[in-house]
Amino acid sequence: MPTPSRLLPVAGPPTRVRRDAAANSDRILCAAVELVQSEGVDAITMDRVAERAGVGKGTVFRAFGSRSGLLAALTDETERDFQRGMLQGAPPLGPGAAPLDRLLAFGEGRLRLHAVHGQLFREIARTPTGKYDVPARQVSMTHVRMLLRQLGVDAHLEVLSEALVGTLDADVVSQLLERGLSEAELIAGWRDLVLRLVGGCRP
Amino acid sequence: MPTPSRLLPVAGPPTRVRRDAAANSDRILCAAVELVQSEGVDAITMDRVAERAGVGKGTVFRAFGSRSGLLAALTDETERDFQRGMLQGAPPLGPGAAPLDRLLAFGEGRLRLHAVHGQLFREIARTPTGKYDVPARQVSMTHVRMLLRQLGVDAHLEVLSEALVGTLDADVVSQLLERGLSEAELIAGWRDLVLRLVGGCRP
Repeated sequence: MPTPSRLLPVAGPPTRVRRDAAANSDRILCAAVELVQSEGVDAITMDRVAERAGVGKGTVFRAFGSRSGLLAALTDETERDFQRGMLQGAPPLGPGAAPLDRLLAFGEGRLRLHAVHGQLFREIARTPTGKYDVPARQVSMTHVRMLLRQLGVDAHLEVLSEALVGTLDADVVSQLLERGLSEAELIAGWRDLVLRLVGGCRP
Repeated sequence: MPTPSRLLPVAGPPTRVRRDAAANSDRILCAAVELVQSEGVDAITMDRVAERAGVGKGTVFRAFGSRSGLLAALTDETERDFQRGMLQGAPPLGPGAAPLDRLLAFGEGRLRLHAVHGQLFREIARTPTGKYDVPARQVSMTHVRMLLRQLGVDAHLEVLSEALVGTLDADVVSQLLERGLSEAELIAGWRDLVLRLVGGCRP
């Protein structure tokens, strides 16, 4: 995994070399995102990304170490954006909305991300135990547990949040899409699941 | 995977050779089950199973092909027993009980199986896409969908049954146990999840 300093602004006046490296990294990440969006994650090779970014292949290796380093950096960017939305973005995903609306928006947002980044997420989580160690998943679990607590759920938080977050995991979503469900049906299913779980009695 | 005929009774009067082979298979499976129960799935090697069963290593290879063939046969046995319980066993797991009680008993039964067979299930489902192709999981999904329908749930069955069955998957259960939950807490969590999902309003 690349260190965050490669992607976030560094303190102090950057040297010319560092500025150039950062510009190259940005260009490479942009090229990679475009490739994923147009052709899927399988299109990501060091050669093709270098070609599209207009840099040498050696530059891609220097910036990201390996193909999986590049994929991790791509996912990091996406996940950081999403987390910013959760923690300080606009409602209903961000603070300010009611917990139930935030929970609904959270799942809907994850499901929409899947269309573009699902293959990437799957590749990152490929090892069976690794899936649970992915930092973004742990952030999701923490967020869902917090919202469940705010909704007055105070027992079995681990099992209930696994049931919720689990249905948003890339491998599960891919499975459901392969079985013929549309993104809209997944989002409607998520809403139904959440409302059944925490919507409670509405006589 | 071994063919069922190796484990189930064959039609017609068995020859002496076939009787011997069947007796050896039984002895080998028993030895393997004992090893898993006492030392975990890592203890399953062709050598150790042969030694414990009192047969030659060649006999184990002839009967099951490979270590993974032996593991698959072990899981098959367990799953067949459980499926018999679901389809024609005593209530509350089997027919005759109310759908809600059957659903509760189903999850509780799967969670109890995990204590003995969890490591085995995990090894069988090790490939990330493979988990969903395991026949036993497809049987579980069908069973849960049927019970949900009987409980009056008629929309989003795929998503809701994934949320339920997903929390019983070996990798999820192992994760929750590693996070410090007990089997009893998992069972209580399952009950809560099911009651929230389908228990509906009880004013």
